[in-house]
Amino acid sequence: MKIVVIGATGTIGSRIVKALEGKHEVIKVGKSSGEYQMDISNTHSILNVFEEINAFDHLICATGNVAFNSFTDMSAEEWQLSLSNKLMGQVNLTREALKYLSPRGSVTLTSGILSDHTIATGTGASTVNGAVEHFVKAVSTELPNGIRINVVSPSLLQESVDVYGDFFPGYQPVSGDLVAKAYVRSALGVATGQVFKVH
Amino acid sequence: MKIVVIGATGTIGSRIVKALEGKHEVIKVGKSSGEYQMDISNTHSILNVFEEINAFDHLICATGNVAFNSFTDMSAEEWQLSLSNKLMGQVNLTREALKYLSPRGSVTLTSGILSDHTIATGTGASTVNGAVEHFVKAVSTELPNGIRINVVSPSLLQESVDVYGDFFPGYQPVSGDLVAKAYVRSALGVATGQVFKVH
Repeated sequence: MKIVVIGATGTIGSRIVKALEGKHEVIKVGKSSGEYQMDISNTHSILNVFEEINAFDHLICATGNVAFNSFTDMSAEEWQLSLSNKLMGQVNLTREALKYLSPRGSVTLTSGILSDHTIATGTGASTVNGAVEHFVKAVSTELPNGIRINVVSPSLLQESVDVYGDFFPGYQPVSGDLVAKAYVRSALGVATGQVFKVH
Repeated sequence: MKIVVIGATGTIGSRIVKALEGKHEVIKVGKSSGEYQMDISNTHSILNVFEEINAFDHLICATGNVAFNSFTDMSAEEWQLSLSNKLMGQVNLTREALKYLSPRGSVTLTSGILSDHTIATGTGASTVNGAVEHFVKAVSTELPNGIRINVVSPSLLQESVDVYGDFFPGYQPVSGDLVAKAYVRSALGVATGQVFKVH
């Protein structure tokens, strides 16, 4: 299978690549690293990279930025960044990928545990993660050619505890390798319209 | 109580006004009718109207536009309209209302049944309704002064069956008066962070 991984050099993306490489042709896309560079908040950037890669079987997006701030302090620009990157970036990735995906291919997007359990400064992230999950459930009903779509909702990663742990009091960290398995299960399995929670 | 109703002359809003008037001071806000005119997608418009109304006890938003289209045909402009109106319009209403709401006041927003059960052309609406519900659950944890927030998710209205019924095959219509009760329950009750489904 030819599998495109967006965010391939990130904490999660690099574990996904590790889980797939050897058995599949993995195309690594990063914002400033990897074989191809893509800014998911820029539709032209998405179009350009997909045109270069051409046909593929599965798309995995393991990236997406949101702003963290208290609700009263969160600016219009911070809301806009969150919506245009993690939400509309993944919506646009999905729409453009449909032109290149094989029949019975798949799209796997990323939300996060904050859609279910918020934290201080997490209202923007909770909103956007929830929107991505609702998008996936709805759009799964209208994808053509048997193409499937799911979303993985990771908890705090073990690999990120030193940096983000204090923001997630009492959250059980999960390993990047376990999270990567959910992306593989989504891409190579049969499910569609599902949220794969790794909490 | 002084209760501000946005969308006061709409199908749902007019039933909310009817349910509250006589017992409460109801301030009716519409896009082009009512006592005050507001475009919720324009933050300046929100600010101007709230400044004129000044202090109030409860805010009810019974309006919010989304675009309906198939996923592959839905344009960037249609996504933007949906996000800037029904999602960010209600987010911005909430943030600005905090400056005028009484302690232990409330905000009640509107999502819709498509967050749970989508229809053809409903992916944008499902995404935005889901985002509004996740926003409400998350932001309820950080509102000051005991201010509460909930969201009402109405099904297809009996009053709208002639116009929209064919888009909602098998959906059980609910009366505008029943939906209005959910807004009253949210505004004058004790719940917070809840989705009031009238399905």
